[in-house]
Amino acid sequence: MKAVILGTTGYTGQVLLRLLSNHPKITRIYPVSSSIAGTPLLEFDPGLGNAILEKTKDCGNAFCTLDQAVEAQGDVVFAALPHLKSAQVCAPFFGQSVVIDLSADFRIKDHSTFIKAYGQEPPRPDLLAEAVYGLAEWNRDQITKASLIANPGCYPTASLTPLLPLISQGYVAGDVIINAMSGISGAGRKAKENLLFCERTETVNAYSPGTSHRHCQEIQQEVSLRTGKAQQDSTVYFTPHLVPIKQGMAVTTTCQLNPGVSDAEIAQAYKAAYQDSPWIRIVPAIPDTSQVRGTNRCDVHWHRDGDRIFLMSVIDNLYKGASGQAVQNMNIRFGFDERTGLPEHGEV
Amino acid sequence: MKAVILGTTGYTGQVLLRLLSNHPKITRIYPVSSSIAGTPLLEFDPGLGNAILEKTKDCGNAFCTLDQAVEAQGDVVFAALPHLKSAQVCAPFFGQSVVIDLSADFRIKDHSTFIKAYGQEPPRPDLLAEAVYGLAEWNRDQITKASLIANPGCYPTASLTPLLPLISQGYVAGDVIINAMSGISGAGRKAKENLLFCERTETVNAYSPGTSHRHCQEIQQEVSLRTGKAQQDSTVYFTPHLVPIKQGMAVTTTCQLNPGVSDAEIAQAYKAAYQDSPWIRIVPAIPDTSQVRGTNRCDVHWHRDGDRIFLMSVIDNLYKGASGQAVQNMNIRFGFDERTGLPEHGEV
Amino acid sequence: MKAVILGTTGYTGQVLLRLLSNHPKITRIYPVSSSIAGTPLLEFDPGLGNAILEKTKDCGNAFCTLDQAVEAQGDVVFAALPHLKSAQVCAPFFGQSVVIDLSADFRIKDHSTFIKAYGQEPPRPDLLAEAVYGLAEWNRDQITKASLIANPGCYPTASLTPLLPLISQGYVAGDVIINAMSGISGAGRKAKENLLFCERTETVNAYSPGTSHRHCQEIQQEVSLRTGKAQQDSTVYFTPHLVPIKQGMAVTTTCQLNPGVSDAEIAQAYKAAYQDSPWIRIVPAIPDTSQVRGTNRCDVHWHRDGDRIFLMSVIDNLYKGASGQAVQNMNIRFGFDERTGLPEHGEV
Amino acid sequence: MKAVILGTTGYTGQVLLRLLSNHPKITRIYPVSSSIAGTPLLEFDPGLGNAILEKTKDCGNAFCTLDQAVEAQGDVVFAALPHLKSAQVCAPFFGQSVVIDLSADFRIKDHSTFIKAYGQEPPRPDLLAEAVYGLAEWNRDQITKASLIANPGCYPTASLTPLLPLISQGYVAGDVIINAMSGISGAGRKAKENLLFCERTETVNAYSPGTSHRHCQEIQQEVSLRTGKAQQDSTVYFTPHLVPIKQGMAVTTTCQLNPGVSDAEIAQAYKAAYQDSPWIRIVPAIPDTSQVRGTNRCDVHWHRDGDRIFLMSVIDNLYKGASGQAVQNMNIRFGFDERTGLPEHGEV
Repeated sequence: MKAVILGTTGYTGQVLLRLLSNHPKITRIYPVSSSIAGTPLLEFDPGLGNAILEKTKDCGNAFCTLDQAVEAQGDVVFAALPHLKSAQVCAPFFGQSVVIDLSADFRIKDHSTFIKAYGQEPPRPDLLAEAVYGLAEWNRDQITKASLIANPGCYPTASLTPLLPLISQGYVAGDVIINAMSGISGAGRKAKENLLFCERTETVNAYSPGTSHRHCQEIQQEVSLRTGKAQQDSTVYFTPHLVPIKQGMAVTTTCQLNPGVSDAEIAQAYKAAYQDSPWIRIVPAIPDTSQVRGTNRCDVHWHRDGDRIFLMSVIDNLYKGASGQAVQNMNIRFGFDERTGLPEHGEV
Repeated sequence: MKAVILGTTGYTGQVLLRLLSNHPKITRIYPVSSSIAGTPLLEFDPGLGNAILEKTKDCGNAFCTLDQAVEAQGDVVFAALPHLKSAQVCAPFFGQSVVIDLSADFRIKDHSTFIKAYGQEPPRPDLLAEAVYGLAEWNRDQITKASLIANPGCYPTASLTPLLPLISQGYVAGDVIINAMSGISGAGRKAKENLLFCERTETVNAYSPGTSHRHCQEIQQEVSLRTGKAQQDSTVYFTPHLVPIKQGMAVTTTCQLNPGVSDAEIAQAYKAAYQDSPWIRIVPAIPDTSQVRGTNRCDVHWHRDGDRIFLMSVIDNLYKGASGQAVQNMNIRFGFDERTGLPEHGEV
Repeated sequence: MKAVILGTTGYTGQVLLRLLSNHPKITRIYPVSSSIAGTPLLEFDPGLGNAILEKTKDCGNAFCTLDQAVEAQGDVVFAALPHLKSAQVCAPFFGQSVVIDLSADFRIKDHSTFIKAYGQEPPRPDLLAEAVYGLAEWNRDQITKASLIANPGCYPTASLTPLLPLISQGYVAGDVIINAMSGISGAGRKAKENLLFCERTETVNAYSPGTSHRHCQEIQQEVSLRTGKAQQDSTVYFTPHLVPIKQGMAVTTTCQLNPGVSDAEIAQAYKAAYQDSPWIRIVPAIPDTSQVRGTNRCDVHWHRDGDRIFLMSVIDNLYKGASGQAVQNMNIRFGFDERTGLPEHGEV
Repeated sequence: MKAVILGTTGYTGQVLLRLLSNHPKITRIYPVSSSIAGTPLLEFDPGLGNAILEKTKDCGNAFCTLDQAVEAQGDVVFAALPHLKSAQVCAPFFGQSVVIDLSADFRIKDHSTFIKAYGQEPPRPDLLAEAVYGLAEWNRDQITKASLIANPGCYPTASLTPLLPLISQGYVAGDVIINAMSGISGAGRKAKENLLFCERTETVNAYSPGTSHRHCQEIQQEVSLRTGKAQQDSTVYFTPHLVPIKQGMAVTTTCQLNPGVSDAEIAQAYKAAYQDSPWIRIVPAIPDTSQVRGTNRCDVHWHRDGDRIFLMSVIDNLYKGASGQAVQNMNIRFGFDERTGLPEHGEV
């Protein structure tokens, strides 16, 4: 199988390169970079091992152009590009390849919500209906048949995974308060002053509180789908924080439970939702992000306190929060085992 | 003025040593260490500068014993000791010196709450009534006359500072959801495996969610004092998180406002509460912890979202969250300017 | 093939567990821990993935005792134990299994040098002659036939890899000045105050300069073997430094070249030494440690400045510097491809 | 006294702002920023405390223009600007104010060496003769009378401090091998991809080895001054490394001693050189960078190994390596105690 990566030089692109390099079903990779096409892969990224050389020999082991990638007629295209740019760059591949888009361009279905979040019209409204939201554990059937998969945001993935089983059962009353912490790689590989080592080491901060972060709209959309309420009536509040780690995301969600929901029902809701999902674990102790680093896992722990429940979930934002879930979606789409080519072990 | 430090070798003790070394009103310091009395200060802590030498010459520039410190008849005693041990070690100083206790031994006034939080009876119930809770901005009058000051916990300081102005005005409805992030020094200088560099770098996690952390009881106590509700009816939920920074604490509090509370009223509540408080700033942008590192400041920002308000506050857990506030309390108690001897500038 | 791990709860033990879990030739793993035998593996180390479960089912997916491991009659035993203790714990396996010892117990061949470095007699002098020094690229033939492999230290591995090709050719004149930086995991997982996060973040320091570090003796031994000089005449100086990273080691070696050595000869020396070694790369730019993190690679760059040459080498101290090379040695010993089961890609 | 800061928004500028804000002899500060003149100081740098407000009221507590600063006729001007740009921006102040230039523009006296290091002619060759090299402990007399002070580079400060006492006494034979580690702030506050948090956390690397770093020329110049050898015959080799800390620099220097030099002579050389220097300490254990963080100290330890000596020195690159030494030079120039306004205590 042939795979194209668009935007290979960002962090998610580099992770895709590593994952596909190890993926037994992928035989050819076309790593596109519009800015440095022609540059040898190992010069740009000396961390790459030799397995990449065999699979990228069509491109001379170098970044290739978009045109070269279009010609290659890849079976699958991973777009690791900025939102609002991604839909446009992907255009030549629609209808030709399965497109897995890691940007936000196809995630938000409602026009006004998209405009609120991204400041302009969705770039390809014609494709919104067919684009499948790639939260893998919740949309497997649709993903199997999809030609365009909107890979979820990292915060929504880490927030929705522990939340949806309870929401779907109607167990949650009142507001959902989500507080999240993200590693710096979530902001991408941009030469911005506020992302410098000296600006981020030994400091933490909140940003975009309440409903002002774009991912809040994405979370609200998926919650509304299950509650049947209009999204504008959603009472999901989401406050992200930046923490000085490279990769990793931890989400703490505070909910009120409806009267009478038992612990056994909660446990059963999680079991029913995830017992056949190899990448979701309900763990007996509060997880830390290092235990999922470099893996596609989302580890979830819940803690009951009267009618309150606290959900603690962790992912690696570059893996389950981006490139790992993208490969999982490819696996589902092409009928491979969901685990294929994805590493299992977190950091020691 | 003569100052005694009990438990000088911990992080808060070391900060006290630095602050008092620079404090113009302190002429003699007696740094107690039961474990390494006699060891030269600069051998243990080569970061100390020369100002310490003049002020500690009575002890030969070395850690001294408790007996030596008792004999010295200090004007003020700072106890930087573990809870449940502190009250006992401080015993010889009660009645002789003003005691500022950085442990939890005198913070919780209610016996059953203390037992719930600390697993046993308060060590000196006879002194609980006279011990003043040293949240400096809220108890100045009492501190002025106190002989025993219970210096607040770091989480309570960072949580109560943004919350009390709203609580006191009766603006807050329903539950208060506090999520906090603390630097690792908050756990003290203990040789524990889970505090090793390799266990804490590049990872974050929640712990003690809901109402299970001891500091939650302390926060609830102070909130209940202002709402008039019984503490057991308190609906303050508090979930702390460990983040890989040495010093620093950021708290994000989510509240519902009562109908009709205007932004102007909120601004006025903060102004009224803190306009004469040099260490509290209401800042126009969400603060990060580095801007208060090494200072006694608490920087607070609030963000309104409909009937929700989000409070973001930052402190340095070793300064405003411990030793800095202890010195501020000494300043208040002895009639000095509150700012005396406390550094102003955060990290670049 | 059955593998035993002794000392599984340390960092090198945990890495071995991950590597063997993924190794296609290993079907059973016996993870020994004398302190917590019986504890479920995933409880102690929630970062482990499910592949571990199948391979450790003989032990009930828990740490096992030494007796259980002896009974299992493993084909290979990895000893990840402290020096001076390792030889003793391994005793039951000698003659039964191939033993790969990650401690220093069998590395130093000369008694007085061992005593100088480790403060006592070698624990098993009878086995020193047969123990093969497992610097994989330099002792392949011996490793193929070895029943006891002394896996090299991390500093020696990173220092000798760039140095031996030049030493072996007789290109180096005068003293060899080695300066090394190690991540904190090199000190192991010990609950010591000086390894706490707060003691190690945002600080660096040298330690054991000159010839005072034990690994200096190990480096000198291997250099002397190639120069023919007595070890006591060695002029290798080695100064290690601790840097605030978890994993990674960078070595900068400064040598004087004999007159007339050309750049082409240097390049040829490296090519001859390593062209068939999949884990050694001579790279065109100075490497950083992240590019080898999590891999078994040693990346080397050399820089000529007149008659001086500067060698820059990087490894992951837990992989090529310990557990990775141990698996590489197993691969060589049992006739597998050297790359089997070892990850290729460094950090993004 | 009135002080001007040129280039206030960089890290060294921000440190200068903090130091001068606390300096008892400075009553007015004119913080110049060509890019954001008019922006309130506390908006750009919310870590600043209130002391800055009184001293900057002439500028309305905002960054000012160069013209405003020229008009102010400051007694002292600190130029914290990029090399090759600094001399030009400082032009209006020559003859009017004492200029302390933190760039390299006036450090290198020899034209061809300057060209080798900086790629072009020195920008103001006419001023090179009168510019005093501001290595404070070695040029006090000249500094007292200087109108232009070339503040040394961070690496030269940390390297020369332990080296010059031995060089000056003629104790050193053969090559001097310097290996240095610098925190990332040494690279300045530039929005460059290779300085991002994600590129620098958990990794270390060497760069510019041998004689290829500009600061090597600066070190060689000062060494040659004391040995009397021509700089081109200098055998100082210098290899810097980047380590993931914000502030801090550690230098390990390996020298050969001339025959017969005793330990007592070495100790005496250091005592003679620094006994009246409050910011240099010869310490009994190898120092780490945290013990000097935020101070103007250089802590030095030496270790003898036969005819080899190893010098370990640490500074804070932003303080003794830049802004701290600049203030120390101001103190010397204007007849204040050298310690005035400079913090004493390193990190706990």
